[in-house]
Amino acid sequence: MAPAEEKPTVWRRDATPLSTGAEYVESLRGRNLRVHYLGERIKEPVDHPVVRPSINALARTYDLALEQPDLATAYSSIAGQRVNRFLHVATSADDVVMQNRMQRRLGQDTGTCFQRCVGMDAFNALFSVTYECDEALGTSYHERLTSFLRYCQVANLVVGGAMTDPKGDRSKGPAAQHDPDLFTHVVQRRPDGIVVRGAKAHQTGCLNSHWVVVMPTMRMTEADRDYAVVVAIPVEHPGLTYVLGRQSCDTRALEGGDIDVGNAQFGGQEATIILDDVFVPNEYVFMDGEVDFAAPLVERFTAFHRRSYVCKTGLGDVLIGAAAQLAEYHGLEKASHVRDKIIEMAHLNETVYGAGIASSHESTPTAAGSYQNDGLLANVCKHNVTRFPYELARLAQDIAGGLVATLPGEADFADDEVGPLLEKYFSTSPDVPTEHRVRLLRLV
Amino acid sequence: MAPAEEKPTVWRRDATPLSTGAEYVESLRGRNLRVHYLGERIKEPVDHPVVRPSINALARTYDLALEQPDLATAYSSIAGQRVNRFLHVATSADDVVMQNRMQRRLGQDTGTCFQRCVGMDAFNALFSVTYECDEALGTSYHERLTSFLRYCQVANLVVGGAMTDPKGDRSKGPAAQHDPDLFTHVVQRRPDGIVVRGAKAHQTGCLNSHWVVVMPTMRMTEADRDYAVVVAIPVEHPGLTYVLGRQSCDTRALEGGDIDVGNAQFGGQEATIILDDVFVPNEYVFMDGEVDFAAPLVERFTAFHRRSYVCKTGLGDVLIGAAAQLAEYHGLEKASHVRDKIIEMAHLNETVYGAGIASSHESTPTAAGSYQNDGLLANVCKHNVTRFPYELARLAQDIAGGLVATLPGEADFADDEVGPLLEKYFSTSPDVPTEHRVRLLRLV
Amino acid sequence: MAPAEEKPTVWRRDATPLSTGAEYVESLRGRNLRVHYLGERIKEPVDHPVVRPSINALARTYDLALEQPDLATAYSSIAGQRVNRFLHVATSADDVVMQNRMQRRLGQDTGTCFQRCVGMDAFNALFSVTYECDEALGTSYHERLTSFLRYCQVANLVVGGAMTDPKGDRSKGPAAQHDPDLFTHVVQRRPDGIVVRGAKAHQTGCLNSHWVVVMPTMRMTEADRDYAVVVAIPVEHPGLTYVLGRQSCDTRALEGGDIDVGNAQFGGQEATIILDDVFVPNEYVFMDGEVDFAAPLVERFTAFHRRSYVCKTGLGDVLIGAAAQLAEYHGLEKASHVRDKIIEMAHLNETVYGAGIASSHESTPTAAGSYQNDGLLANVCKHNVTRFPYELARLAQDIAGGLVATLPGEADFADDEVGPLLEKYFSTSPDVPTEHRVRLLRLV
Amino acid sequence: MAPAEEKPTVWRRDATPLSTGAEYVESLRGRNLRVHYLGERIKEPVDHPVVRPSINALARTYDLALEQPDLATAYSSIAGQRVNRFLHVATSADDVVMQNRMQRRLGQDTGTCFQRCVGMDAFNALFSVTYECDEALGTSYHERLTSFLRYCQVANLVVGGAMTDPKGDRSKGPAAQHDPDLFTHVVQRRPDGIVVRGAKAHQTGCLNSHWVVVMPTMRMTEADRDYAVVVAIPVEHPGLTYVLGRQSCDTRALEGGDIDVGNAQFGGQEATIILDDVFVPNEYVFMDGEVDFAAPLVERFTAFHRRSYVCKTGLGDVLIGAAAQLAEYHGLEKASHVRDKIIEMAHLNETVYGAGIASSHESTPTAAGSYQNDGLLANVCKHNVTRFPYELARLAQDIAGGLVATLPGEADFADDEVGPLLEKYFSTSPDVPTEHRVRLLRLV
Repeated sequence: MAPAEEKPTVWRRDATPLSTGAEYVESLRGRNLRVHYLGERIKEPVDHPVVRPSINALARTYDLALEQPDLATAYSSIAGQRVNRFLHVATSADDVVMQNRMQRRLGQDTGTCFQRCVGMDAFNALFSVTYECDEALGTSYHERLTSFLRYCQVANLVVGGAMTDPKGDRSKGPAAQHDPDLFTHVVQRRPDGIVVRGAKAHQTGCLNSHWVVVMPTMRMTEADRDYAVVVAIPVEHPGLTYVLGRQSCDTRALEGGDIDVGNAQFGGQEATIILDDVFVPNEYVFMDGEVDFAAPLVERFTAFHRRSYVCKTGLGDVLIGAAAQLAEYHGLEKASHVRDKIIEMAHLNETVYGAGIASSHESTPTAAGSYQNDGLLANVCKHNVTRFPYELARLAQDIAGGLVATLPGEADFADDEVGPLLEKYFSTSPDVPTEHRVRLLRLV
Repeated sequence: MAPAEEKPTVWRRDATPLSTGAEYVESLRGRNLRVHYLGERIKEPVDHPVVRPSINALARTYDLALEQPDLATAYSSIAGQRVNRFLHVATSADDVVMQNRMQRRLGQDTGTCFQRCVGMDAFNALFSVTYECDEALGTSYHERLTSFLRYCQVANLVVGGAMTDPKGDRSKGPAAQHDPDLFTHVVQRRPDGIVVRGAKAHQTGCLNSHWVVVMPTMRMTEADRDYAVVVAIPVEHPGLTYVLGRQSCDTRALEGGDIDVGNAQFGGQEATIILDDVFVPNEYVFMDGEVDFAAPLVERFTAFHRRSYVCKTGLGDVLIGAAAQLAEYHGLEKASHVRDKIIEMAHLNETVYGAGIASSHESTPTAAGSYQNDGLLANVCKHNVTRFPYELARLAQDIAGGLVATLPGEADFADDEVGPLLEKYFSTSPDVPTEHRVRLLRLV
Repeated sequence: MAPAEEKPTVWRRDATPLSTGAEYVESLRGRNLRVHYLGERIKEPVDHPVVRPSINALARTYDLALEQPDLATAYSSIAGQRVNRFLHVATSADDVVMQNRMQRRLGQDTGTCFQRCVGMDAFNALFSVTYECDEALGTSYHERLTSFLRYCQVANLVVGGAMTDPKGDRSKGPAAQHDPDLFTHVVQRRPDGIVVRGAKAHQTGCLNSHWVVVMPTMRMTEADRDYAVVVAIPVEHPGLTYVLGRQSCDTRALEGGDIDVGNAQFGGQEATIILDDVFVPNEYVFMDGEVDFAAPLVERFTAFHRRSYVCKTGLGDVLIGAAAQLAEYHGLEKASHVRDKIIEMAHLNETVYGAGIASSHESTPTAAGSYQNDGLLANVCKHNVTRFPYELARLAQDIAGGLVATLPGEADFADDEVGPLLEKYFSTSPDVPTEHRVRLLRLV
Repeated sequence: MAPAEEKPTVWRRDATPLSTGAEYVESLRGRNLRVHYLGERIKEPVDHPVVRPSINALARTYDLALEQPDLATAYSSIAGQRVNRFLHVATSADDVVMQNRMQRRLGQDTGTCFQRCVGMDAFNALFSVTYECDEALGTSYHERLTSFLRYCQVANLVVGGAMTDPKGDRSKGPAAQHDPDLFTHVVQRRPDGIVVRGAKAHQTGCLNSHWVVVMPTMRMTEADRDYAVVVAIPVEHPGLTYVLGRQSCDTRALEGGDIDVGNAQFGGQEATIILDDVFVPNEYVFMDGEVDFAAPLVERFTAFHRRSYVCKTGLGDVLIGAAAQLAEYHGLEKASHVRDKIIEMAHLNETVYGAGIASSHESTPTAAGSYQNDGLLANVCKHNVTRFPYELARLAQDIAGGLVATLPGEADFADDEVGPLLEKYFSTSPDVPTEHRVRLLRLV
């Protein structure tokens, strides 16, 4: 395939800095993205019921920065001004801890993934890795990265990170696959840039981002030189195709209505991105062939990202609160087995939080002056995140009872015929509006 | 409300005995049920994409009886012939164990709930409880029940059981609720029968059944006399209204296509049933006011039902097999962390099975001559069923990887534009058809 | 070393059949065993405070057979009479289940390992393996074994089983070790028998047994021919040396006094046995070089033995009872967190029991006519036994409180000076004798 | 009973400041303590094999302060000099974190409880509580406490804390017990001081301390005024009687020899202290009747103490290292099931550590200027400490194998007769000295 020729306007837009969530939402319109979903091409993702909730969640990261600048912004010496914390490279252990605090708060606010952490973790990892690469090999990636970061900070853009390749046969490395494209790689090198091809799977932040940073997914060997590549690409680049995955509870979004407190307004979505021979100018290339620096990049990004899962404790807070309220609606708030379950939920949630902020607090300075968190404790955090939410969900469902799974749809509650009957039979007490109970059940 | 006058034909249809699954499916057509779903009234549930999978699963219980009569039928002295095992009252510990074996097999075949266990467990519990009630109080429920059971056995009908009332404020008993209808109760007694009102929540088998047996959901006191009621009602009775719950992965069914191995063809669904002053003739009344026998009925039914969850080990078998196959497709079948997870999955699955069949084997004879399983071991089985499937799912997803949650829809794979790209990038090896891998991922 | 010449009287004593526990205890005296413990040679193990409790526990297996012959004896067609169930080869699934019932009961009675299961499991496994070996290779082991078994049954002897070799480097097989003796093997073959050398580690039943059956510990290859050996040896054979291991709570036994309900009277002990070139006459050789039958023997023995751990549920019953009684003494029997812990203890205990008897119930006939239990469910039983007792102990200690670990010794309670003070301060209520509480704490 | 008249010399000894561990050990001699153990009175605890290991462990806290002053000392503005960190009141979050780091290190060094944390946690909690009490009620406890603390800091003394009362019937408060002495209380008030009576159970640090601070164990009500009492008493006060509890592995200490790396040299012990009408001069009284401050004291002490269990991660490090080394000796260091267990051990250990230091990092300033750690995260730490060590022990024993429980005693290895045989049979490879392996097994 011939590389898709980039339109210059794609690479750097002369944009007014974004401030509010609403401005951010508007900035995403009219980009003519190539997005496929269930066999259809989506015209405007911003207005699509499956994509919009994730945009709404991201918008909260803008508004929170206005509401609580101490929590959600930081002074950056790179830009010489306060910037959104998601675009800030941490220069102290406290900075790293503050990321966790902001993540928990946004988890509480949105009840879902707000999709801006990957970019934050990518910038923080790349900052020190490009520095060390330049020191060792005389490259100039660090300056390029800093320049790009300054632009994003000032314009207040959303930058996603794309790491996970399809990987094919997991027992083989990138260069040994039956199809060389199963890992993203450089297919052509030109004086003014490089051409990359491949795919990246389950990307949470892309349709709702302005840029995406493509990174390798694993340690590389000499044979994998073409696979050790890091580039930044505008999301609207015509060489990018997006295929949205089916979400596990899609009908909620498609159903309409407004009874879902959490998941209708806010929500995640994930897409596969296909890179069809995309030309990237040199100034957006932050690694090209330096195989020894792929492993440090993956490790540092992973260390940051594994404790970023602290956001889940915000969701945990929401779930615990909903379960406790439902217990009260059911007249069971004093029942010991219910209380014990809620305490256990809090215990699990705080265990995740503890490991996360411990990892952040134990950060140490890098040669570049940024701070890197503790990898072992980050692993602990991630490991517990993969275990505990199942347990939290189980406990919440135990408390909520069987209705969580079998609740009639909102339209039935509004129906003239069966609506009043459902209203009658889902009541627990004259003091508790049935609608409140149903909203909470839906949330859980 | 005036009781809905029953049409006599509803109460006993002169039906040809059903034999094949296909005959069973046909027998459900044209019943004019009042079924609501997402604000719409469903005309013919048999053809509705959300209901049909559960009908298909139930149809397997007919076909299995033809394929393996030793496993799925038993000689009943009540009917004087072999009958479907789901309609058989166990008269030996081996009979009880055979129920578990059949359940596991059907779990493997359908990968879902096949919805005929509740009726089996209800008949088995009622058989001894009505006998003991008659002995103690001079009633004649046992003969009525036996007569009804014989009819169902010969006609080979599906009988559901409805137990769970909405329950309102969980800290109060039936008679103490703010609305007397929050538990199903007798609102009128006539010489020829009784009138009942109330609702029953999350009923897995009703739209796909011929009859439903309504039972109390908890221990009763003297004050709850009107709530101690057991009756059988034809599913097509005009006094019954059904509201289907939203299922967690509804779009799969609505999406069309045939790539979902398990869940598109077979599946469960749950409904809320509203009983709007239904008149029940005396011959279908098996308890009316005998409050002391409500608790034994609930206990015995519960003991049977809690070890009926052995069916989940059949699903577990499917999940374990799918995970193992995916591991092989990914080139990871020899990786120790994957092997350990599969072993752990088998361990959890067999722990559930062990407690279940131990409970069945430890059955003891009742005064009525039927056999009752061990309640303590049944509790153990149930308790583990509530814990382990989350763990099984977590392990299966760990093995399958992130694609389980974010896989593009089937239509995208068929799309001219992105289909070939997805085919290319979801390949793991030239020897593994991508379609096979995608089918398995979908299954998990 | 020259083989120790056996005294003929060792090999078959003309003994009066044993009946009571007391007779059994007497039968062990005067055997002049070579037993080392903490650097000393023990003169008479029967009277030694570290060994005696295990003898007492075993004595219960005799007395229980007199008290409850249905439970603890069975008719053996080999002996043509009822025999102790520990010496019976199961000829039906019910027989296998009855072993579990007896084990749980003895676990309740003794609160410890009663050390007679290994022999039972060894006879049951050898019975079918020797039969199949003879069928395949024309050997005559089955008749020898049956003859030996008949003798043991009639005389009512205790037969231990010795399986675990020291094993050296676990990554190498028997023949590949740096010292050929790290696995027990044949060092000489003579017309009238064979000479064996090696050691067997942590043997629970040997000092308290009459005979020990030595078996291979793992699958063998052709190279391991000399290691595929099964023989029976009298415990008092002069070629055997025993080194008793230190037990984790030795001082209890050495301390004297009688306040320990469980562990002072009954208890386990484990020894290393060294076989110093023991000559074994042919009639006591049940395998010699048939490497293909080592694996089936290990597998069948293991399958039996892994569900024999059901005995631990008897200990669990004791622990649960003690914890519940302590909770009552502490005025906490109604506290929800205590009740929940006791329920969880019961749940864990019954999960083990469920898998065990399920495995036994699922037994199938062997070619020899004996019954073999289900190996997969036995694994589940064992796996849970390795997990749950730690959890049971933790829960029991949570309930009992810190005193379990730090309780003053019995002599301090009897002391003139501090005794009354301890009596005063360890009291919980005037209605609860402090001594009862202390006994229970000690038990836990 | 008449109050034991104190000898003035007991209350403030004119001691040379202690520096080395050896000096500390000497300072404990000749105190004529009333110590009972297994019915005997111990003449000199310093030389007793059951007490000495705990003294050795404590001595490490002195030597570590000399070896690594940054870690184990801190500048105290109270004394105007650097003091042992165990005597330092934290005045920053970093100070609180440093306590955790020191605790983990000492856990690694000693492999046991080093018994000086309770005093540290008590001083830290009392510092802010006495301040707030004085502010609220005009008392002068804070100055008294500061004066006492300065004395201890300069002299470098070990101060234990005594909190746990026998508690009698747990469903009743202090004043409602059948015996008023079941909680420690004031029995007489005099112008120059108060007389206290009662007992304190399972005290880890007392025989090896110079002073003990007696504190209430729970929230108090108005009725419990006499029970809201905090005093400091010299350990050698003649009104104190100590009864040593039996330890679970006592024979190790009594056995002699030096093969136990960890537990012979270092070790814990616990005692019951009986306070027989001890007169305490006013200057050592830090609370007397201020019932509203009992709860804050208990809460703050508990918050500190629950994350002090981070010390267990030092033991965890030792256990993980020993298990890994044994795996290598056994030739199993590459076996996946062994590697997975070691990884799981590290995961559990770091989960505890993460919650602990997170709690410390989240400290906030008190009115008195000291820093108080986060109580919720401290609870998480403690909760996991009560769960995970059982799991760690189980995993370590799985790796070590059965010998851990049944290893022959050291004297048997030294025995002329059986020693060489044990040496031979416990060998795993010619490269691994059997003694090393045995030492590690003993350690586990």
